[in-house]
Amino acid sequence: MASLVFFYSPGACSLAVHAALRQTQADFEAVRVDLREKQQLAPDYLRLNPQARVPTLSVDGRALVEVVAIADYLDRCFPQAALLPTDDFARAQDMAAIQRLSSDIHPLYRALWRSGWFADDPAAHDTLKSTATRRLREFHGELEQRLAEGSWGQGAPEGFLAFYTGVFLRWSAAVDPQGLGPECEALRTRMAAHPAMAGALAAEGIRLDSLERLTG
Amino acid sequence: MASLVFFYSPGACSLAVHAALRQTQADFEAVRVDLREKQQLAPDYLRLNPQARVPTLSVDGRALVEVVAIADYLDRCFPQAALLPTDDFARAQDMAAIQRLSSDIHPLYRALWRSGWFADDPAAHDTLKSTATRRLREFHGELEQRLAEGSWGQGAPEGFLAFYTGVFLRWSAAVDPQGLGPECEALRTRMAAHPAMAGALAAEGIRLDSLERLTG
Repeated sequence: MASLVFFYSPGACSLAVHAALRQTQADFEAVRVDLREKQQLAPDYLRLNPQARVPTLSVDGRALVEVVAIADYLDRCFPQAALLPTDDFARAQDMAAIQRLSSDIHPLYRALWRSGWFADDPAAHDTLKSTATRRLREFHGELEQRLAEGSWGQGAPEGFLAFYTGVFLRWSAAVDPQGLGPECEALRTRMAAHPAMAGALAAEGIRLDSLERLTG
Repeated sequence: MASLVFFYSPGACSLAVHAALRQTQADFEAVRVDLREKQQLAPDYLRLNPQARVPTLSVDGRALVEVVAIADYLDRCFPQAALLPTDDFARAQDMAAIQRLSSDIHPLYRALWRSGWFADDPAAHDTLKSTATRRLREFHGELEQRLAEGSWGQGAPEGFLAFYTGVFLRWSAAVDPQGLGPECEALRTRMAAHPAMAGALAAEGIRLDSLERLTG
């Protein structure tokens, strides 16, 4: 068995990988790289992850980065954890929802929380934040509908898609502090009680229904 | 064998899937959905892809969306096409580079070409465009270095990562019209001559070294 060292920041998208790792029941060492403390800029960490981001999974000393790539890797190495569907078409449907979160929704949180990534001129940040907030609220409406009709991934989200969606449900407090629709809230409640996710939340010192820490 | 119908817009990121489909040697019907003509807003297409984006791959009438999900699906259905490495760790390294393009670099082209996605206020669009241009140029420097040191994906890009990187090398003309470094240009030349990519380019009526059509 490979030696696994997992680098995360509390509440960042690495939370989904944290839950997935616990779901595999593999032994792994978890190392906190606190984005709020700028620990991702430490030279030792930059050697592992030159993008200065989390998560990183070190496999026998070789670094893997990017949430989707790590999810695919863990699913292939630990099929018994059922992180992704085994049917090819169902797997692709889950992967499509995962990519939607990664490529479409995560950049909106980046525009909200790190507006300087998209606009050097601070005068533009207000419209970036308000536009991102509007689009994220629209997404919450879409997610509510897709959960209701069973079209988010292969249907009822489980495995990695459920963990990853859970991260974004937590972040939703930044734009929808009054809470989400019943389907979204039910998924958040189910994820908060899921053994693998609950273990990851406890290890990171956060909850799924509040932004005690704000990381993006 | 499933019935495959592939929906693309010339030069959009669907080009990578187009090349991958040709690489599988599967029979498929290619349907043009021209983003410049707003054909993605046709009701029939919106039923397949409510995001109004390309690509969509219809598999026996069921729609698959999102580039990475389709790539993973084609790789699993057509392993002989070698779209992704068979070794789990090498596959994850290719997937990480693919996700980098999808989640990090594609949103910068969105900020450049469809600034309204990120900022409702047009007064902010100039700084969005100039910031995206700066970051994309930085990425081209990073890509040049990673190709030189063999750290873009598993090493020398081939299969889906090479096709997908080719799409972004084509788009690079929007921010680096004078051309890229020798490693990037060598990859672009190699991709332009690759039978699967060359066939896709011919079918879409575009070249890899110019932005005859500008789609994002």
